[in-house]
Amino acid sequence: MTKIISVNAGSSSLKFQLFEMPSEEVLTSGIAERIGLEEGIFTIKYNGEKHTQNLPIKDHKVAVDLLLKALVEHKIVENLEEIKGAGHRIVQGGSYFDSSAVVDEDVVNKVEELSDLAPLHNPAHLIGYRAFKEALPQIGHVFVFDTAFHQTMTPESYLFPVPMEWYENYKVRRYGAHGTSHQYVSQRCAELMGKDVKDLKIITCHLGNGASITAVDGGKCINTSMGLTPLGGIMMGTRCGDIDPAIVPFVMKKTGMTPDEMDTALNKKSGMLGISGISSDARDIENAVAEGNERAILTQQLYVNRAINVIGGYYFQLGGCDAIVFTAGLGENDCNLRHQICEKLEKAMDLKMNYELNDKTRGKEVCVSADDSKVQVWVVPTNEELVIARDTYSLLGF
Amino acid sequence: MTKIISVNAGSSSLKFQLFEMPSEEVLTSGIAERIGLEEGIFTIKYNGEKHTQNLPIKDHKVAVDLLLKALVEHKIVENLEEIKGAGHRIVQGGSYFDSSAVVDEDVVNKVEELSDLAPLHNPAHLIGYRAFKEALPQIGHVFVFDTAFHQTMTPESYLFPVPMEWYENYKVRRYGAHGTSHQYVSQRCAELMGKDVKDLKIITCHLGNGASITAVDGGKCINTSMGLTPLGGIMMGTRCGDIDPAIVPFVMKKTGMTPDEMDTALNKKSGMLGISGISSDARDIENAVAEGNERAILTQQLYVNRAINVIGGYYFQLGGCDAIVFTAGLGENDCNLRHQICEKLEKAMDLKMNYELNDKTRGKEVCVSADDSKVQVWVVPTNEELVIARDTYSLLGF
Repeated sequence: MTKIISVNAGSSSLKFQLFEMPSEEVLTSGIAERIGLEEGIFTIKYNGEKHTQNLPIKDHKVAVDLLLKALVEHKIVENLEEIKGAGHRIVQGGSYFDSSAVVDEDVVNKVEELSDLAPLHNPAHLIGYRAFKEALPQIGHVFVFDTAFHQTMTPESYLFPVPMEWYENYKVRRYGAHGTSHQYVSQRCAELMGKDVKDLKIITCHLGNGASITAVDGGKCINTSMGLTPLGGIMMGTRCGDIDPAIVPFVMKKTGMTPDEMDTALNKKSGMLGISGISSDARDIENAVAEGNERAILTQQLYVNRAINVIGGYYFQLGGCDAIVFTAGLGENDCNLRHQICEKLEKAMDLKMNYELNDKTRGKEVCVSADDSKVQVWVVPTNEELVIARDTYSLLGF
Repeated sequence: MTKIISVNAGSSSLKFQLFEMPSEEVLTSGIAERIGLEEGIFTIKYNGEKHTQNLPIKDHKVAVDLLLKALVEHKIVENLEEIKGAGHRIVQGGSYFDSSAVVDEDVVNKVEELSDLAPLHNPAHLIGYRAFKEALPQIGHVFVFDTAFHQTMTPESYLFPVPMEWYENYKVRRYGAHGTSHQYVSQRCAELMGKDVKDLKIITCHLGNGASITAVDGGKCINTSMGLTPLGGIMMGTRCGDIDPAIVPFVMKKTGMTPDEMDTALNKKSGMLGISGISSDARDIENAVAEGNERAILTQQLYVNRAINVIGGYYFQLGGCDAIVFTAGLGENDCNLRHQICEKLEKAMDLKMNYELNDKTRGKEVCVSADDSKVQVWVVPTNEELVIARDTYSLLGF
C-alpha cells in the first residue's frame, strides 16, 4: 500500500489530503488554521466524519505533528511508514520549472530565490515543506508548481511590452497561476468529452477568490491572464487585474498613499469588494443583487464584461475553441455568473446553452451546453490535490 | 463664403487646416514646429505647393501670426474676415463633454481643470486657443474633444475594478482617446458599405504611434482600449498599454527608479521600442524583420497578439461584428501588420481576406476583405480635421 500526502501550506494554515495510490482514493483530508495565533483550529475528515480541535498551534511543525498523530489515532494509517511520499503545492516556480520536481537542495534554493515574485506564498510553502521533512525524513518529497503548466507559452504571450531589460535583468514576464487546476480541468474535460486533449482547443476559467483564464491548445497553455504576480489578469474578489498602469502614480499623487498602501488597495480593496463596497464574496454580491442593490448589479456586470473580453481574446488566439470549462469556487457554484458570461458568448460563438441545467449545476461534472452546441461548456470541479498526489507518486518511481 | 480653420496645438507645434464650408474643400494646411526653440519651421501647403520657412517661432502667438500672414500673402484668403470660425482639438474632455462645445469661459475652465488627466496636451491646446482668440477676437471658437465619442460607454466598460472612491473622488475611469477618429472612420465605413451606421457593429482600430481600438455599436462607442491616460490599452510605439500593475512597484524596488523615471519608462521606452530595442517606428521594425532580426519579429508578434486579444474581446462584447476598420499611420499604411492581424482573426471569425489587395493598400479607402466575406475589413484614412471643421461649422450656426 502506497499512501501519498498532498500538502498546501500557507503562512498561517496547512491543508492536506491523504491518498491511497494508485487507486486515488481519498483516505482523509483536513486543515490546520490560525497557525501561530493564540487560538488555532485543527480539522480532520475521514469516513464521513469531521473532527475539530481548538487549540494553540505554535508553528507549522506543531501542525504537522498534530496531523500525523491524528492519522494514527483515528487509525487512518496503522503506522506512519505507510506514507511513502509528500507532494507540496508551490505557487511560483518561475522559469525554472516546467513540471513537478523531486525536492533536493537545488530545488529548495530556487523556490527560495523566487520568493520576491510570490512573497506571501513561497516562503510559507518552504516552512510547510521543512516541517514535513523533519517529521518524515525517510520519505521522498515533490514540489508541484502552479506556474509549470504555463511554461509552454511563447514570448508573444508571456512578455509584457515594457523595456526588454526588465525581462532580462529582473525576469519580469507573465508566469500565470492556478496551473495545476487549468491542467487538471482541461484534461478532465477532454476525458468527459471522450476525446484526446491533444485534439482540442479549450478555454479554462478558474474563477475563485483569485481567478485566471487560460487558453489551452492541444493540452498546452498558450496564454493565461495572470501576470507577473497574482494581481494581474481579470477582476477578482479583492484584486483589480490588468489596468492602465498610470492609475497607480495618479492616485498616489492625489491621495499621498505610500507604495505599500497602494499595494494593499490594489490587492485587498479592489475587484468585487472595491466596486460593490459590500464584500469580496460573490455569494454576498448575489444576495445584494437579489435585493436590487445597484452597486452589486454593477459589480457583476463589470466582472462579466472583463471576463468575456479575456475569453473572447483567447478564442481568437486559439483560432476558435471546442470547449469552455468553469472551475473553482465561483466557476463551479455561481450558476448565475456562468449564465451571464455564456449569454454574452452565445451571441457570437457557435455555442448554445442549456440554461435550465446550468442554473442548477453546482460543484459537479456536468456539460451545461445544449446537446447540439458546437462549443461545449463544462463545469468541472478542480482537484489540485489529486494532481499533486499523482505527480508525487509518479516522480518517486512507484 | 465660410472658411473654418481646424487647429491641433501641441506644446511645441501647431497644425492647421483651412476648409471651405460646407463644401469641405481643403484650401490649405500646414504646421508650425519647434515653437519656442532656437530654430523653428513653418510649413504651409496649398495648390499642390509646399512652402517651408526656417525661423525662430517664439511662441504660439507668433505661430498664429505667421499662419494668418501666410494666408493673405499666398492669396488663400482675400482678407482674414473670411475666416468665420476656429475648431480646436482637445485631447481630454473628461466626463464634462459628450459632444463638441462652443467655447466660453466655463468651457475653458473645465479644460484647464482636466489638465492633470492630460498634462502634456490640455495646457498646450489652451495656449493654441488663446493665441487664435487674440488674433481673431471676432470669430467663434469650438472645442472638439477626443474623449466625447467615448462618453456613451456604460459603467461596466468605463470603470476599472479599483476602489470606487477613486472614481467618486478623483474621477479615475476610462476616458478613451482618438474619439474623433473612431467616430469618423466608423461613420465613413458605414457610408462606404452603403449602410446606416445605426445598423452596424464595427470595431475600429486606430493604430498610430498612439493607438486604440473601439467597439462601435449602432454608431455609439460601447468600449475602447485607452484608459485613464494615453498609457492604457494596447501596445504602442513607446507605450506599454494595460499590464499587471504590480510590475510598477516591483521594478521600482529592483532598480531604485523614481516615479518620474518609471513614468518615462512606461510612456517613452516601452511598446515597440522596448521590445525591439531598435525603434518605436513600425517602418524601422518592418525593415529589421526583412533582415531577419529576431527582436523585431518578436515585436510584431507581440503587437499582433495583444491587438487580436482586444479585438476578440470586443467581438464578443458587441455580440459579433459587421466590419473591422483600420486607420491612422500603421492602420492605413502597414499592410503587413493588417495582414498578420486579420490572418489570426480569419481562423475563428466569418471573415475572408483579399490579401493581394490588402498587401498593396496604403492610405486609401479600400475594402480589403474578399467579396464573399461576412465581416468586411476596411482601410479608411482618418480625417479628424474634417470632423473638427464640420462640428465648428454646425455649432456656430452657419
